[in-house]
Amino acid sequence: MTVTSSPQSLANAIRFLSVDAIVRAGEGHQGVPLGMAEIATALYLKHLKHDPAYPTWWDRDRVVLSNGHGSMLLYSLLYLTGYEKISLEQIKSFRELGSHCAGHPELDPEAGIEVTTGQLGQGIANAMGMAVSEAFLRARFGNDLVDHFTYAFVGDGCLQEGVGQEMISLAGHLGLGRLILLMDDNAITDDGSTELSISEDVAKRFEVAQWHVQRVDGHDLEAVSSCITAARADSRPSIILARTTIAKGLARLQGQRGGHSAKLFEADAAQMRKDLNWSDPEFEIPERILSVWRASPSVNRSSRSKWLARVATLSPEKRTEFERVMRGELPPALESALAALKEKLLAEPPRGGINLSAAINDCLTDHLPERIVACADLEAPTDHKKRLDAFSASNPSGAYIHCGVREHLMGSMCNGIAAHGGAIPVSVTYLAFSDYMRPALRNAALMKLSVKFVFSHDSIGIGKNGPTHQPVEILASLRAMPHMLVMRPADAVEAVECWEAALRHKQGPVSLIFSRQALPHVRTSAAADNLSARGAYVLAEGKNLPRQVSLLATGSEVAIALKAREQLEALGLSTAVISMPCWELFDRQQASYRAEVLCPGTTTVAIEAAVKLGWERYLGNHGSFVGMNDYGLSGPADALYDHFGITAEKVTEAALAIRAIAT
Amino acid sequence: MTVTSSPQSLANAIRFLSVDAIVRAGEGHQGVPLGMAEIATALYLKHLKHDPAYPTWWDRDRVVLSNGHGSMLLYSLLYLTGYEKISLEQIKSFRELGSHCAGHPELDPEAGIEVTTGQLGQGIANAMGMAVSEAFLRARFGNDLVDHFTYAFVGDGCLQEGVGQEMISLAGHLGLGRLILLMDDNAITDDGSTELSISEDVAKRFEVAQWHVQRVDGHDLEAVSSCITAARADSRPSIILARTTIAKGLARLQGQRGGHSAKLFEADAAQMRKDLNWSDPEFEIPERILSVWRASPSVNRSSRSKWLARVATLSPEKRTEFERVMRGELPPALESALAALKEKLLAEPPRGGINLSAAINDCLTDHLPERIVACADLEAPTDHKKRLDAFSASNPSGAYIHCGVREHLMGSMCNGIAAHGGAIPVSVTYLAFSDYMRPALRNAALMKLSVKFVFSHDSIGIGKNGPTHQPVEILASLRAMPHMLVMRPADAVEAVECWEAALRHKQGPVSLIFSRQALPHVRTSAAADNLSARGAYVLAEGKNLPRQVSLLATGSEVAIALKAREQLEALGLSTAVISMPCWELFDRQQASYRAEVLCPGTTTVAIEAAVKLGWERYLGNHGSFVGMNDYGLSGPADALYDHFGITAEKVTEAALAIRAIAT
Repeated sequence: MTVTSSPQSLANAIRFLSVDAIVRAGEGHQGVPLGMAEIATALYLKHLKHDPAYPTWWDRDRVVLSNGHGSMLLYSLLYLTGYEKISLEQIKSFRELGSHCAGHPELDPEAGIEVTTGQLGQGIANAMGMAVSEAFLRARFGNDLVDHFTYAFVGDGCLQEGVGQEMISLAGHLGLGRLILLMDDNAITDDGSTELSISEDVAKRFEVAQWHVQRVDGHDLEAVSSCITAARADSRPSIILARTTIAKGLARLQGQRGGHSAKLFEADAAQMRKDLNWSDPEFEIPERILSVWRASPSVNRSSRSKWLARVATLSPEKRTEFERVMRGELPPALESALAALKEKLLAEPPRGGINLSAAINDCLTDHLPERIVACADLEAPTDHKKRLDAFSASNPSGAYIHCGVREHLMGSMCNGIAAHGGAIPVSVTYLAFSDYMRPALRNAALMKLSVKFVFSHDSIGIGKNGPTHQPVEILASLRAMPHMLVMRPADAVEAVECWEAALRHKQGPVSLIFSRQALPHVRTSAAADNLSARGAYVLAEGKNLPRQVSLLATGSEVAIALKAREQLEALGLSTAVISMPCWELFDRQQASYRAEVLCPGTTTVAIEAAVKLGWERYLGNHGSFVGMNDYGLSGPADALYDHFGITAEKVTEAALAIRAIAT
Repeated sequence: MTVTSSPQSLANAIRFLSVDAIVRAGEGHQGVPLGMAEIATALYLKHLKHDPAYPTWWDRDRVVLSNGHGSMLLYSLLYLTGYEKISLEQIKSFRELGSHCAGHPELDPEAGIEVTTGQLGQGIANAMGMAVSEAFLRARFGNDLVDHFTYAFVGDGCLQEGVGQEMISLAGHLGLGRLILLMDDNAITDDGSTELSISEDVAKRFEVAQWHVQRVDGHDLEAVSSCITAARADSRPSIILARTTIAKGLARLQGQRGGHSAKLFEADAAQMRKDLNWSDPEFEIPERILSVWRASPSVNRSSRSKWLARVATLSPEKRTEFERVMRGELPPALESALAALKEKLLAEPPRGGINLSAAINDCLTDHLPERIVACADLEAPTDHKKRLDAFSASNPSGAYIHCGVREHLMGSMCNGIAAHGGAIPVSVTYLAFSDYMRPALRNAALMKLSVKFVFSHDSIGIGKNGPTHQPVEILASLRAMPHMLVMRPADAVEAVECWEAALRHKQGPVSLIFSRQALPHVRTSAAADNLSARGAYVLAEGKNLPRQVSLLATGSEVAIALKAREQLEALGLSTAVISMPCWELFDRQQASYRAEVLCPGTTTVAIEAAVKLGWERYLGNHGSFVGMNDYGLSGPADALYDHFGITAEKVTEAALAIRAIAT
């Protein structure tokens, strides 16, 4: 019997590439690529708008493998459709150091990988963000320029995760009709039958949330394709529950728990070759099959050229603006607008830290129309909506997303917005709730996505709401994350400087951390030079040089350091205050600048209303720390600062105590 | 018109206490206490089994205020029913420093506060844990001894949170019939109408998850009471969606967004007195009303005395065991069982870190029957089930909970199990997924709950699964949490020691962190003395004293330090290896012990396959760190250790480099 390029053999090409790669790697997850081979074939061969020769074409459909452990499914598809970066050599080096085919997919749009997945639930939340971005940009630029779908492969695990449930609820509410989930409904999780941990009807759960729901045999390629057609036509977000057999094709494991990731051997691959009547050797996809796969995107090449033609006919202004947004460049007028705002805020009475951020964000409404704000049911206390309309199914041009009390989804959705490109996501909640979205923060940092995370209510300074709402350990836990910039401005001028630096920073996420309470002006002029962008700087030098004492502080504690400086100077000690809004930027400065700022050898005290962890870096062996070593308490903010000894007097005492020991 | 002690006036007593306290405090959240006054009155006066004179009576019903911002509801109830700690003076000092009436309820069973709430979603997940604990202990000790319900007040916010959705799904699956949610269905969140962020029918969402669902007018006290009766009778978990008017009674704000927490003034209280025909001055509850409230629990006093009588009739062995479990004491035979296991593991070939934990956990199956293991769909790779049965509706004596891929719920549920008392919760997942449950970890630490969090797959040592699954920043972020013990044992002996110390530690949570890869034996004898319990100790002293080099390490990196020690000794440098399984315990040791271990002034290098943050504490100004400064990569574990330079050779180089500078 001759194997022809039947639809089944096209799908089987995925199975053999995947099994051959997993056998060679010695480990991997065969459940997904074998179970979803027909589903993926239906999508990539019959529906997907992409052009492997131009993988980052802006109006392509986006695909997310939310069940990221099934990475060989994606790599097989990318090789078969002709993405140059995913060559056969790469597939042969699956899971080896340096391979583009890593254990879990790692963000690389040039390779056709839209987002890093593997932490369950993240991918579908990212996909929702991509669909938000598409709808938002389509509303602004029109269907001629923005007109694509977001597809996500998903398994039971992603849907059990809270972030997945939050996504279901909010995506249904927002009516994101361009979002289509393809579910590997195999009734198996790592522990065994899904009956071990879930009794609900997943389809009904989506129906309750106002989704378009279809069920289908996941191994019937034509039926799946019809479902995708129907999903594309429906105005609601869609899920296609495709009933599958896990690890289908592997006689020893299919339909069983071990199908997920039990170790495969060459005998398994040999048996599958026999069972599926596949005569080609390992890693070899016969030309009659490969040619069909490779030809498939040719339909869409015309999509791309037509799109390019439409872009070319735009008016010069519209084209310039569209291309600027596509490239992610800031508008030229933004800098002067922020400079003017800095002057304005400096001339006004002090505001709460978060209200400074709100004013800056409001300025972006005029000057950065591609900015989207997402907030988790804290509109009033964070005030980042102001003149923005709510984003909704009926008004996708709205740049403010009422996320409900769903912080985790909010963060992961913002990651998807950033990964999509074009829009600039700003996520807003209290710092204490950042823990709810920590996997999103980590993924943003891991992928180096340009997301601005605004966190308000940053310390015991919030007062009476008490320790559940008072972060003490969270600055340290954010500073522990590679590629996360943590900025905690001290006043109006620093707030503008930090926001400006954050907007310019495109190689990773930024956490912009603000107080609830008013921040007195500690900077007295709005110099053009962005001092905060250096991470730390001498805010006030000792009066008579050489300096004897260095007080380091961030945010609301900089004002305390300035008071302590007055006390120490009155005692005849030349004392400088170093404002350190961003450790990560400071640590990247040249050694000479860092030494000039820190003045090693001087008596050093650091002040921050948070735990000490990490400050040791700047304190040397003899420095002292004034801050928290426990959770907070419920009470008025001033009383709490006194209670925990975060006062100018205690700073002065600490400095004098060090000097007493030293002499 | 005379106000009588009508049911309405009983509920209004809550309204006036709450409004008077919030006006005095100058801030607070009136929406919940005013909206839920009738619901709470129905529960406390007609159903709740408790005895305010013995607040910690073990078989009491548990009550959780999951919408913790409405704390004045709980404080009012506790004052009205006669909990001594919640006196009128305490209510008058609501939100002041030192008051038992903090901004959000803070765990204090003596005061009738079962759990700290305020971070939305946590309370209902804690409540689920309490219901699990009750069912598990009832299965073991019988209805005569364990026979109570868990009630939780809950708002929209808790149900939007992912952790809340995870709870709905798993509690329905497990059929926790003693769990009853009372929902403040007021259709308002902080942002305004719930229509801003949700379109789903919440009742149907619960029905899909197999809950018993009732709808009722939340201001009809008798109707609510009937619903509670029906909920108690149903074998499924129940939710009562009580339609309410937010801030009911406050003419200016009721039914509106501002009802949630807009500032109240004395005029508001005066208007409410007029509207509700309440003539008593502020904070004064008339005797005719207070006496009804105070008399209410008298029904249940007989419950308690009957229960005490039943306990008294138990056989001595059963009574001793029941009382031991109630007191949370470890069984006497446990110590020798663990000592024997230590010998056994030491005599066997090295195992993966997590497999050591699995063997210890299996020993607990014989010796600590009150231990419950919860695991998030990682049974096979963590192996903590072994001989345990699955906990289910039909077998609540099962001590292993298949949580599905719901880490957050798992952690928060374990907090509830610990807060309930009696059972000892062990939560198991990968360290990379600890971020998903970080709010649960924080709350466990804030409440000092005795939860054992086992985290496996602790570093790049997991290899090919890549950076999504490789923690690098998480040890630091856990060490940042006050009251969290972070233990990372280096081998079999340390694994047993750390587990033993963790079981003895009852003043807070412990994170027990294990490698996936095998841990070679670094301890060569199973000394009776628990060296790990001191946090750090000299594993191998320098060969010729005085010591010249100190190598500090934890977990799998201790073996690397030992290899480096051989290299350095061969170069003539007297080198010690310090194993530091738990910083927090070490930092509590006397200064003399710490100095003896660290030997300040010696050349110090720390080795850990994680970021440096925090290690500065032990390194002084001249120490060096060998570890990670970025996320990991996908590849074989050995190749990754080489790639990132975490090798004995690099440690030796680092030590020599320091000495070259010093001389």
